[in-house]
Amino acid sequence: MNTGILVLGHGSTLPYNKELVETLSGMIADQGDVVVRTAFLNMDEPTLKQGLESFAGTGVDTIVALPIFLAHGVHTLEDIPQELELNEDKRAVTEIDGKSVDIVYADPLGADACIAELAYKRAEEALSR
Amino acid sequence: MNTGILVLGHGSTLPYNKELVETLSGMIADQGDVVVRTAFLNMDEPTLKQGLESFAGTGVDTIVALPIFLAHGVHTLEDIPQELELNEDKRAVTEIDGKSVDIVYADPLGADACIAELAYKRAEEALSR
Repeated sequence: MNTGILVLGHGSTLPYNKELVETLSGMIADQGDVVVRTAFLNMDEPTLKQGLESFAGTGVDTIVALPIFLAHGVHTLEDIPQELELNEDKRAVTEIDGKSVDIVYADPLGADACIAELAYKRAEEALSR
Repeated sequence: MNTGILVLGHGSTLPYNKELVETLSGMIADQGDVVVRTAFLNMDEPTLKQGLESFAGTGVDTIVALPIFLAHGVHTLEDIPQELELNEDKRAVTEIDGKSVDIVYADPLGADACIAELAYKRAEEALSR
């Protein structure tokens, strides 16, 4: 299987969300034999449509749409599924290079212990400034 | 020093952001000898003002305002500092139980390797469904 990951960011009028999503995308690409691209819901580009198109020439047959959001909300449950035309099973099929490509939709990050540890570290840093 | 952490969430019309922030707050409370409270910028309560007030009776002399946001953006650089009346050094002083209490402001989570690993795990889960 030739898998792609489309890393989805919120987007922002400021540069920091895009920088975060691009940095994380690089780290995600280092973790496996996958083709990684980025896209943004609002305010930044590539858009989701452009992000899907950017897999042209890569030969992927499956794309995981991976939202870099902490929790589910209107963006992950309504906006992204609508833009990707996901069915009730959180799947869709798109066409890239004249070939059918499956899209599957990942969950947001969630309340993992590593996020709590990272947040606690940020609190300690603020106290020591 | 008697330290409090005010864990700040975005808030949402759906319940998931509040659930995430409350779960993470519990995990953060388990990591140190701190008094942890939560507050939300939009749509959920306690508000930031209510969150500060909720340290009444705890005896804290410093509160870390800890944004559970992935990256800086308008919320962390404008909205929260304005609501907390932070100065240019990201600090403020408030009054709780008739006593001055320092507020310091932590950075958002940022592009940490643990977040990339968690995101990659979410992608793998989506592929195996």
